[in-house]
Amino acid sequence: MTDTRFSDRIRPLRDEIDRIDSQILTLLARRQEQVGQVAALKKKCDMPVYHPAREEDMISRLRTQAMEKGLDPDVTENLFRVIIRQSRVKQTFSMQYKGVRPGAGVLIIGGAGQMGAMFASLFEKSGYQVRILTESDWDDAARLCDGIDLALVSVPIEHTVTVIEKVAPFLPANALLADLTSIKKAPVAAMCTSHTGPVLGLHPLFGPTTSSLDKQIIVYSPGRDMTAGHWLVEQLNLWGAIPVQAAPEEHDDIMEIVQALRHFATFCFGRFLFEKQVKIQRTLEFSSPIYRLELGMVGRLFAQDSGLYAQIIFATKERRELLQEFVRSLSQHIDMLENKDIPTFIRQFNDIAAWFGPFSDQALRESTFLIDRLIERF
Amino acid sequence: MTDTRFSDRIRPLRDEIDRIDSQILTLLARRQEQVGQVAALKKKCDMPVYHPAREEDMISRLRTQAMEKGLDPDVTENLFRVIIRQSRVKQTFSMQYKGVRPGAGVLIIGGAGQMGAMFASLFEKSGYQVRILTESDWDDAARLCDGIDLALVSVPIEHTVTVIEKVAPFLPANALLADLTSIKKAPVAAMCTSHTGPVLGLHPLFGPTTSSLDKQIIVYSPGRDMTAGHWLVEQLNLWGAIPVQAAPEEHDDIMEIVQALRHFATFCFGRFLFEKQVKIQRTLEFSSPIYRLELGMVGRLFAQDSGLYAQIIFATKERRELLQEFVRSLSQHIDMLENKDIPTFIRQFNDIAAWFGPFSDQALRESTFLIDRLIERF
Repeated sequence: MTDTRFSDRIRPLRDEIDRIDSQILTLLARRQEQVGQVAALKKKCDMPVYHPAREEDMISRLRTQAMEKGLDPDVTENLFRVIIRQSRVKQTFSMQYKGVRPGAGVLIIGGAGQMGAMFASLFEKSGYQVRILTESDWDDAARLCDGIDLALVSVPIEHTVTVIEKVAPFLPANALLADLTSIKKAPVAAMCTSHTGPVLGLHPLFGPTTSSLDKQIIVYSPGRDMTAGHWLVEQLNLWGAIPVQAAPEEHDDIMEIVQALRHFATFCFGRFLFEKQVKIQRTLEFSSPIYRLELGMVGRLFAQDSGLYAQIIFATKERRELLQEFVRSLSQHIDMLENKDIPTFIRQFNDIAAWFGPFSDQALRESTFLIDRLIERF
Repeated sequence: MTDTRFSDRIRPLRDEIDRIDSQILTLLARRQEQVGQVAALKKKCDMPVYHPAREEDMISRLRTQAMEKGLDPDVTENLFRVIIRQSRVKQTFSMQYKGVRPGAGVLIIGGAGQMGAMFASLFEKSGYQVRILTESDWDDAARLCDGIDLALVSVPIEHTVTVIEKVAPFLPANALLADLTSIKKAPVAAMCTSHTGPVLGLHPLFGPTTSSLDKQIIVYSPGRDMTAGHWLVEQLNLWGAIPVQAAPEEHDDIMEIVQALRHFATFCFGRFLFEKQVKIQRTLEFSSPIYRLELGMVGRLFAQDSGLYAQIIFATKERRELLQEFVRSLSQHIDMLENKDIPTFIRQFNDIAAWFGPFSDQALRESTFLIDRLIERF
């Protein structure tokens, strides 16, 4: 090494790495082409894109091969999950516009809003006859509702029931009446009362800016005559979404936790950081990836629409009471802190841990996986 | 398609995809071999593993090539970040044991604990003379401390100050005294009082089970004579960690937020789910990836050691007061909920959003990136 400079020695090695990377890209492009052919074939034969068994099969085969070749099986699995997901998105993208009932008439009430516009576009691309009813169209409601097969209500939560009652008299008796509100008890009840035909409540668990419905969850609450409403669930599934069934009451109970409590707790945390004027950027310099992730969850909330979160948090009386209960639950800890009561903390901690059960370990594994992704990135 | 069955048609396409995947694996194995040679060369020439410019160079070149070949540049970048990170970990792994002062004597006080054992192993592999002092070794303290260059205190937070006071009289006057406690004010003060030589406070922001120090943050608080203590910071850096400097007071202020407040808030959330006996698994079926992630953060806490979290939460009087303040801050929202005071909520929300500033958008982007990884995985 005395007479050969480091840069002369490392150059050929780096060039070889670059050549290998370029060959990997060529193979990825060829793979993408093959996947395109698979997608075309599936479309022709009406086969679903997602094939869990085939994917898990591939992954285990690749893990074995990786080990044989001296590669880390976990890293290899991660890599191929990225590749496979991408190919599924591409396939879904080329297939998602297939219509279950192409030609059927769909009326989107509130179709000028973001969520309504998203569904209008999906229905249109899938060959449906789409009409939009906005606030200024009520004079024309009779004509817009004439002969439609589906009326989909997509308006802010506080107007949902009123709009349902207003539109119902115009609907054909056999039209499916559905809504996209994030609560289900009141809207489904209103739809069943106002309309005599089939009724289906929906709650998409994703925002209107999502790039694909692939693996996105949508809850559906049958109201009346599910046989007549089933095609809509099928259509959502074909667009790549995962439909999950729940009674309106169960849905609302769960959403109190999944949405209202969670967002409220995040709001309170952000509010306290603000009150204390914590220097966010400086804390990030000190942060483990997990803190970065948790603080990111808080920051994320405040990058979004305050009105939307107000709707979610204040939606129902039950919710507001649950959140008050949450605040009172925290107050019980004042004494424990005041008295430095570590035994009580440890006892409570262990009770909660036992109750969480295997979910804790699963959560630890999952979040560790994500933290590794975060370290990769930053 | 009438006489050819779907499975006959799809078989050759899938076989070709499997062949391509297998070729990709072969290339990855060859790449790994080249990277091994680069690492060996770097080690020989004392060059650092991480070369940000080279990495960013590679990534932009790969993005361009990907687009030329009809591949998605973002997906390609994600893939290669996984590959590159893996190769960096491998390189760091083979190089991290280089010692800044090989042969120097290191005494780990509490070296039988997990964190102490981890550092003992790192120092040993880097050519230091490592001795361990455990609870049962105090009779032998004079001999163990004789001629050492570094004494590193790695004991539970509540014993740190006592142990510092106990060990200091045995230390050579010029030995560096350092600790690994998650608070810094009290330990650094105790070290400066008890010992006349160089003093350095450390706080590793990672657990003892971390697989590599690569990109892990470690806070260091100079106590006295940083010139004499600098080699230890350099050594941490060489192991792959990122050292961040902070005065003990600033460190403790920030950790109140980054650790105590955050863990306490998570504890309270978990406690409330337990009180309400929420059906965790059912809520997960309804969950958007972001809820899964947030609930995972809660579950994760309870998969870990209650004693460790008790230490963090109850560490100092200032902390316990801050947490009481947090609980009282939440109580202010009771009226807002009771009165369905949406305008107040929106006003507060917008104030907080304005205060978070650009961090919110950054957090939204970062967490969206992670959510995409989570969707890939599940």
